Amino acid sequence: MKKEIKFSLVFRDMWQSAGKYVPRVDQLVKVAPAIIEMGCFARVETNGGGFEQVNLLFGENPNKAVREWTKPFHEAGIQTHMLDRALNGLRMSPVPADVRKLFYKVKKAQGTDITRTFCGLNDTRNIIPSIGYAHDAGMISQCSLCITHSPIHTVEYYTNMALQLIKAGADEICIKDMAGIGRPVSLGKIVANIKAAHPDIPIQYHSHAGPGFNMASILEVCEAGCDYIDVGMEPLSWGTGHADLLSVQAMLKDAGFQVPEINMEAYMKVRALIQEFMDDFLGLYISPRNRLMNSLLIGPGLPGGMMGSLMADLESNLESINKYKAKRNLPFMKQDELLIKLFNEVAYVWPRVGYPPLVTPFSQYVKNLSMMNVIAMEKGKERWGMIADDIWDMLLGKAGKLPGELAPELIEKAEREGRKFFTGNPQDNYPDALDKYRKLMKENKWELGEDDEELFEYAMHPAQYEAYKSGKAKQDFLEDVEKRRAERDKSPLDDAKPKTLTVQVDGQAYRVTVAYGDIDLPASATDKVSASVGEGQDVPAPLEGKFFLTKNTQETSLKVGDKVKKGDLLCYIEAMKTYNAIRADFDGTVTAICVNPGDSVSEDDVLMKIG
Amino acid sequence: MKKEIKFSLVFRDMWQSAGKYVPRVDQLVKVAPAIIEMGCFARVETNGGGFEQVNLLFGENPNKAVREWTKPFHEAGIQTHMLDRALNGLRMSPVPADVRKLFYKVKKAQGTDITRTFCGLNDTRNIIPSIGYAHDAGMISQCSLCITHSPIHTVEYYTNMALQLIKAGADEICIKDMAGIGRPVSLGKIVANIKAAHPDIPIQYHSHAGPGFNMASILEVCEAGCDYIDVGMEPLSWGTGHADLLSVQAMLKDAGFQVPEINMEAYMKVRALIQEFMDDFLGLYISPRNRLMNSLLIGPGLPGGMMGSLMADLESNLESINKYKAKRNLPFMKQDELLIKLFNEVAYVWPRVGYPPLVTPFSQYVKNLSMMNVIAMEKGKERWGMIADDIWDMLLGKAGKLPGELAPELIEKAEREGRKFFTGNPQDNYPDALDKYRKLMKENKWELGEDDEELFEYAMHPAQYEAYKSGKAKQDFLEDVEKRRAERDKSPLDDAKPKTLTVQVDGQAYRVTVAYGDIDLPASATDKVSASVGEGQDVPAPLEGKFFLTKNTQETSLKVGDKVKKGDLLCYIEAMKTYNAIRADFDGTVTAICVNPGDSVSEDDVLMKIG
Repeated sequence: MKKEIKFSLVFRDMWQSAGKYVPRVDQLVKVAPAIIEMGCFARVETNGGGFEQVNLLFGENPNKAVREWTKPFHEAGIQTHMLDRALNGLRMSPVPADVRKLFYKVKKAQGTDITRTFCGLNDTRNIIPSIGYAHDAGMISQCSLCITHSPIHTVEYYTNMALQLIKAGADEICIKDMAGIGRPVSLGKIVANIKAAHPDIPIQYHSHAGPGFNMASILEVCEAGCDYIDVGMEPLSWGTGHADLLSVQAMLKDAGFQVPEINMEAYMKVRALIQEFMDDFLGLYISPRNRLMNSLLIGPGLPGGMMGSLMADLESNLESINKYKAKRNLPFMKQDELLIKLFNEVAYVWPRVGYPPLVTPFSQYVKNLSMMNVIAMEKGKERWGMIADDIWDMLLGKAGKLPGELAPELIEKAEREGRKFFTGNPQDNYPDALDKYRKLMKENKWELGEDDEELFEYAMHPAQYEAYKSGKAKQDFLEDVEKRRAERDKSPLDDAKPKTLTVQVDGQAYRVTVAYGDIDLPASATDKVSASVGEGQDVPAPLEGKFFLTKNTQETSLKVGDKVKKGDLLCYIEAMKTYNAIRADFDGTVTAICVNPGDSVSEDDVLMKIG
Repeated sequence: MKKEIKFSLVFRDMWQSAGKYVPRVDQLVKVAPAIIEMGCFARVETNGGGFEQVNLLFGENPNKAVREWTKPFHEAGIQTHMLDRALNGLRMSPVPADVRKLFYKVKKAQGTDITRTFCGLNDTRNIIPSIGYAHDAGMISQCSLCITHSPIHTVEYYTNMALQLIKAGADEICIKDMAGIGRPVSLGKIVANIKAAHPDIPIQYHSHAGPGFNMASILEVCEAGCDYIDVGMEPLSWGTGHADLLSVQAMLKDAGFQVPEINMEAYMKVRALIQEFMDDFLGLYISPRNRLMNSLLIGPGLPGGMMGSLMADLESNLESINKYKAKRNLPFMKQDELLIKLFNEVAYVWPRVGYPPLVTPFSQYVKNLSMMNVIAMEKGKERWGMIADDIWDMLLGKAGKLPGELAPELIEKAEREGRKFFTGNPQDNYPDALDKYRKLMKENKWELGEDDEELFEYAMHPAQYEAYKSGKAKQDFLEDVEKRRAERDKSPLDDAKPKTLTVQVDGQAYRVTVAYGDIDLPASATDKVSASVGEGQDVPAPLEGKFFLTKNTQETSLKVGDKVKKGDLLCYIEAMKTYNAIRADFDGTVTAICVNPGDSVSEDDVLMKIG
């Protein structure tokens, strides 16, 4: 009999890999006893990642949710774990150090035993402070290697990174194979190397099923000494989710490992409850595409979960390219040709932007840059013409150190545009902020909460916390659920179009509008932004996309009459989920805004006039 | 660098794992050059299994198809292979020995190099003659181990089976993991054992993705010395299909094996052509469910591809059970409870019916028997009350020797019912038949064809060949395609029901029928079987299902006025795709047939009257 392999049910990630939301606290509390009854889990992933933010989004208090949901596992002797984004904490942007420290104290007090810390760039400067913060709070610090597949992300690279993290105090190592793109034999070697140096450091393997490698990877890492395997279960396993518990257990049992038995009656209960939650509201946010495996992106190295959005991008960009070609009597491009060009461009771009691991958001950045380059070149323009601000931040080192070297052509471009590289510690750009939020809470007469948990929540997710407190989050959420439910439950009748038709009655033709059911027609007018067209120079759209005056509700938007200086932000064109900033080329006054926010624009459409 | 691993594209199986049909000859000829251009295949599965029969079904000559489709691969130095069912040849029922012999001669002449022979029961008496027939025809004989997971299907069992087949002359061994249920480490051991005894015998691993084991299995068998891996490709990989070429190649490359490179431009061409064929007509026969992975059936050992039909069976049987319970004021059963009872019953039934490998049709037999037993017991009846004739044939040894022992309770039941066990060679029950078909062809003035290929086709698939020759097959196929296309392409408008609605025009209400488009209403009357109700004793339905007078068009159906003797076949109740024969309990005359063929009946409904 080989060693014992323990299982963790990544319940939180199961939902977030499939859709946007996680179950409500009443649902979590309902399913917990059945998960315990299954008798096969040493650990359960209860929270972390977007969990807290998602709770706020649907108008629930995440602090209450985490406390109630972790409690039964504690009583049953099952460890709870969570995911955190190091410098980015529980959000997608950097977090001040004092908020990071408080975060671990709060989560420990709420019942989370282990924190799994990762940096999407694998910059250990972002991770290492979290080890100390976690220890100060009494948590187990599990540090992650984000797996990607490139010439510089070698077995040696990951081994060294793990050794560095262990030296800095990490209690455990997570092999975080978040795109499932890790190659089985190499992953086994990484684990073997770590175990050779530190036989007592527990290793947990986390993976997604997408490109199909992960069952083989699980077997390889177990043979190499891995201790814990993250698993999912039906009806949320495979595809963009995780390997299924039943398959993993059967495979490892046959391989001679000591694995726990599964109480199948309890399994069926949990399975039925997951389905019940999906039928309630969670399924409204889950695309059936997420159950599919995908291998096509293995070549370019992109995560398979990106396939759906990539094909949508491809379609709209192909249209734009062929419009251009039609005007010039050039032969049309086929979708497959564009896809191959995109793959080839990823192969060109990725090394040149320093091989950031191809996981969110960096995988989107690399894909978008590559797509922009292909489109530009198809239209006779130069590469690298359009680089969004978020992407520049990554290139300049503001999110952390890139694993590889930036290409000279990009360094030159940055210098030409006066952009400054940042080589310091990214944390230094974000001064402590708790005092500010404490003060705001006092002004609002809001409680700081048990263990300062409300303070923490506000400081971590300011906008969402305010929407939660005002009740707007819950209202928006319930409205959205109702809309989706109506869409899901509508009968084929509701699709009957045209609603207005010509009907002959007793030989006489009438123009009749028939409305089936109680469905109201959508209001035809939306609030228009005042758009008086004045005198001045045109600001043309440099690319196709959607026009926005602001990227988020916290920014103030430009109005007619505002003065702008050269380089000032005017507006954005959103393309492929990236906001491309449009800046003023000269000083002047806005005399007209010619497009409504949210509207689609073609290349060269006039966005504004500046006089 | 480890050894070289070669790939085979199982193009035929890719289509048949996804749906009913394979591409037409014009499509095959179109895709062949691009497959060759991919540059990574040592072998392609061109035909076999249901390929020939499917060609006849859509009214094409399979002989022409195989000749044209194998030709470009030959010219490119790529070996072609096919699948055959040993005793069952290219159909689902036993084939006379002279037809089997001719079969290999014809397929070799048409351009197929390798034949992969399997018996669903792993009875080598059914396989071994095919080795000689293949050799006589100049083909390479690859013999298969059908993989299932039971206490008697051990590494030793499969090793011995392989050694026996090699001793009998097999040139190669196929590990045929047709439900993907084989456990990776055990499969590796089987391959290692065969290679230890016969290092020069090539081994080819064939698997399906369903329960998620096969990528790990591929790695294990390669480490153990496997030579060829069967792969699929997008958009038909994964789910009920095969592991994707791109994933397999990347995994093995990382593991240090010598693997061919893939020409991605050609890959994209083939991928686009597959999609084109699907958009033409093949997709009309493909269920999107087939792209899903499934682990739930690993426990009972059933193939995951069965999940869809199993859940449908479960639903209708649950209704029937709860109707019974409602009448008796018993608490209702939940679907999950029934599923667990079914799984437990499979665990009871499978060993007792001698562990036939859980692959088509035996997996259906075991599932159906188990379901019948559960229903019977829930309704206060005994186990084994209803065993269909096809299942009896398997139990009695007519299809071959069962791998395990039949339980005493079934042996007693057989004896009680006067059923005879068969211990001879199954082939002996089927005398040579070529002369008969030669005579029939002469009478019909049909050509025997090049290399006697038309004679072979007729003798292998008599009913389908006749339908092909008469043009009825093509006509039926085209009608079915049109029906499905109309269903696929219909606009939401076509679903607008009721077509008759009340419309207010200028304040006056009218009853108006609106027909959108050119769609005719279906004819309301179908041909009814004459069903005059006479005097006599009732023949009640012993179970719920669909009523049929015959199982196929070749049988003659019973009519009112026919005389029947005790034990004579009266009709069938089809439940879960199994035809359950209903026989007469006494001598008499049919005085009434009370149900129309194809209609659903409940338990105890009167089917006929016998006076």
